[in-house]
Amino acid sequence: MIIREIHVTPVAFRDPPLLNAAGVHEPWALRTIVEVVTDEGLTGLGETYGDLGHLGKVRECAQALVGLDVHAMNAMYARVAATVGDVVTDLHGLTGVATKEKSVDRVFAAFEVACLDIRGKAAGVPVVDLLGGRARDAVEYSAYLFYKWAGHPGDEPDRFGTALDPAGIVEQAALLIKEYGFTSIKLKGGVHPPDEEIAAIKALHEAFPGVPLRLDPNAAWTVATSIRVGRELDGMLQYLEDPTPDISGMAEVAASVPMPLATNMCVVTPGHLPPAIAAGAIGVLLLDHHYWGGLVRSSHVASLCETFGLSLSMHSNSHLGISLAAMTHLAAATPNLTFACDTHTPWQNGQDVIAPGALRFVDGAVPVPTAPGLGVELDRDALARMHEQYERCGIVARDDTTYMQRFDPTFSATRPRW
Amino acid sequence: MIIREIHVTPVAFRDPPLLNAAGVHEPWALRTIVEVVTDEGLTGLGETYGDLGHLGKVRECAQALVGLDVHAMNAMYARVAATVGDVVTDLHGLTGVATKEKSVDRVFAAFEVACLDIRGKAAGVPVVDLLGGRARDAVEYSAYLFYKWAGHPGDEPDRFGTALDPAGIVEQAALLIKEYGFTSIKLKGGVHPPDEEIAAIKALHEAFPGVPLRLDPNAAWTVATSIRVGRELDGMLQYLEDPTPDISGMAEVAASVPMPLATNMCVVTPGHLPPAIAAGAIGVLLLDHHYWGGLVRSSHVASLCETFGLSLSMHSNSHLGISLAAMTHLAAATPNLTFACDTHTPWQNGQDVIAPGALRFVDGAVPVPTAPGLGVELDRDALARMHEQYERCGIVARDDTTYMQRFDPTFSATRPRW
Repeated sequence: MIIREIHVTPVAFRDPPLLNAAGVHEPWALRTIVEVVTDEGLTGLGETYGDLGHLGKVRECAQALVGLDVHAMNAMYARVAATVGDVVTDLHGLTGVATKEKSVDRVFAAFEVACLDIRGKAAGVPVVDLLGGRARDAVEYSAYLFYKWAGHPGDEPDRFGTALDPAGIVEQAALLIKEYGFTSIKLKGGVHPPDEEIAAIKALHEAFPGVPLRLDPNAAWTVATSIRVGRELDGMLQYLEDPTPDISGMAEVAASVPMPLATNMCVVTPGHLPPAIAAGAIGVLLLDHHYWGGLVRSSHVASLCETFGLSLSMHSNSHLGISLAAMTHLAAATPNLTFACDTHTPWQNGQDVIAPGALRFVDGAVPVPTAPGLGVELDRDALARMHEQYERCGIVARDDTTYMQRFDPTFSATRPRW
Repeated sequence: MIIREIHVTPVAFRDPPLLNAAGVHEPWALRTIVEVVTDEGLTGLGETYGDLGHLGKVRECAQALVGLDVHAMNAMYARVAATVGDVVTDLHGLTGVATKEKSVDRVFAAFEVACLDIRGKAAGVPVVDLLGGRARDAVEYSAYLFYKWAGHPGDEPDRFGTALDPAGIVEQAALLIKEYGFTSIKLKGGVHPPDEEIAAIKALHEAFPGVPLRLDPNAAWTVATSIRVGRELDGMLQYLEDPTPDISGMAEVAASVPMPLATNMCVVTPGHLPPAIAAGAIGVLLLDHHYWGGLVRSSHVASLCETFGLSLSMHSNSHLGISLAAMTHLAAATPNLTFACDTHTPWQNGQDVIAPGALRFVDGAVPVPTAPGLGVELDRDALARMHEQYERCGIVARDDTTYMQRFDPTFSATRPRW
């Protein structure tokens, strides 16, 4: 099954004004859709970031991979590494430090997923079966709460409403739980002074007793603040995610707070694992196949985490259904991925490049697709429409900070902030 | 592809009197051949140890796995773990400590390889393609030298001759290199006092200048002896394998000798990796899919080693062609497995359960089979003959020590010995 052509299509979709430590989501979120086509006419799908520097490398690699067999992952990785070269494609700063290795893994991942989609289709089995088979029949996701404005400035309010205080956050959680059935909650923090976010967690704890809670301030706090918040939230958090920057800072916090620390910022590439493990910096790694080099390499990392006694959850950026399918297959095949995964799905508000019906939430979990491959199909009209949106929207790289500064010129994304 | 039946056949084949720290190889070596048959009539092959305790567990698991899909590795592993239970099946002491986890991994591996064989056949691709594709077209093996007697006591001398001193070892190396083209040499030590083995390495170094050499005394030495030998062989060994027992002993030696230490004895299951890494005990891990839980789990371990800067080689026990094929596919798909692998193939002296022609040595390397699956087929006459040999030979578990004591009642396998 030789790769005959690869189509790379950037798309944009409406994104609500979700607040975070770097600023606020712009009105359009970007993704890149990858279609790998074999000489036998099978097509596989991948989804990755839409930022221009990364997109350029994805396009270059799409050319470089034509002619390879869809099984030839080692050869494919070598070609991607050679094509990406020493260029470090930086994304927005919420997924941790950018490295050369991570830049390669990030580009490779989209092609790897597409090739697994093809291999699953050819073998007549879902991708989960290429990764070891199901360890669970459905993958739990968490309600991913954000502080947010009513709508983008100048636009109509969106249907999710305002969430700028504990009451607004509790209301948002109730809405997402009602619509999706989530049984875990994650709050994106790092937006308000820590005491306000402590109050939000306490309000969630009171409103949803027994529901596991997480808080992720994206490294907005100093070590001292992180320790204070961690101690204050004793008994209320399943884990505390990236309270402070860097492995050394995380290790200091980890030694002094009662709950495990999780990360998708200080450990984002294999080279970070040895020092983080030696320092005892984290208890939970948030896997993300988009930057850990695809599904198989993520399963290697999962195995390493099991060996070293680290727990696993899963990270999410704004994404569409191809990514949700890939995340679901990976999580289903990973026995030690026992925490509910993150997903931005609710914030898509129904927008997607895939045909409806393949993925659904039942009690906060996505049943693993049983159709061959990823189990999702492109909706070509939607793809065309969302590509047109990309062409028109004027955004070529995510920049929450500059967008925020348009409304608050004094805003600074410097972290730690508190 | 549902597993309909599994056949488990113990076999025995002639083995020369190869000496090691535990004693001497008996006249017959044992293996177990596993055939997994699916509802669609595809058959996959696996090969594992023949020792009776292990064989019993393999037979029990063969019953327990019927009805599973060949992709369902997570479910299969869980069933094997439940079936093996808390029983630790011990083998001869040359593959390190026996643990519950290793007992499970060891049983699981034979079925996993057979299922990969089936999946490769179904997809029309060699097993290497299910593991990431080729990182190399042929896998290098080393000449695996043994001190040995002319023949088993009471038998005719075998064609390999006596090797009890440096001249005999050099002669044996010349024979294996002539027949197989090996470009690396490993000497099984721990047989004679260390100074004699130092002399053998020096003789090999002189006779085969530039050829990488290794010495493996199977933990027969104290820490002090290991350090002395290591220093004496500075510049002559590619690595020194298991000079002394235990992670702590290896770490002491590693800190004081100029060459990397390798192991297949102190790190033989995932739980050994964190303490060995923390202690800096080893520089090279000898992978062995037979006890690391099969090919995919071995590739996870390989990835972990890359992350932590450990090099990889491959361990071997007496084996037949199914194992050689599996080892070759795994090594070919593992980019960071850069040392020549061990193999006992020459000591089989042509005996095999597989039809001839699929595997061959070219310049010391086995070209990766290109036929679907493992690329080898059972020779049913040979299997029947070798099973009959198993029934007749009277050996049910390898015991080099008792066999040695028949000829030298004073022999003790206690280690460290020197």
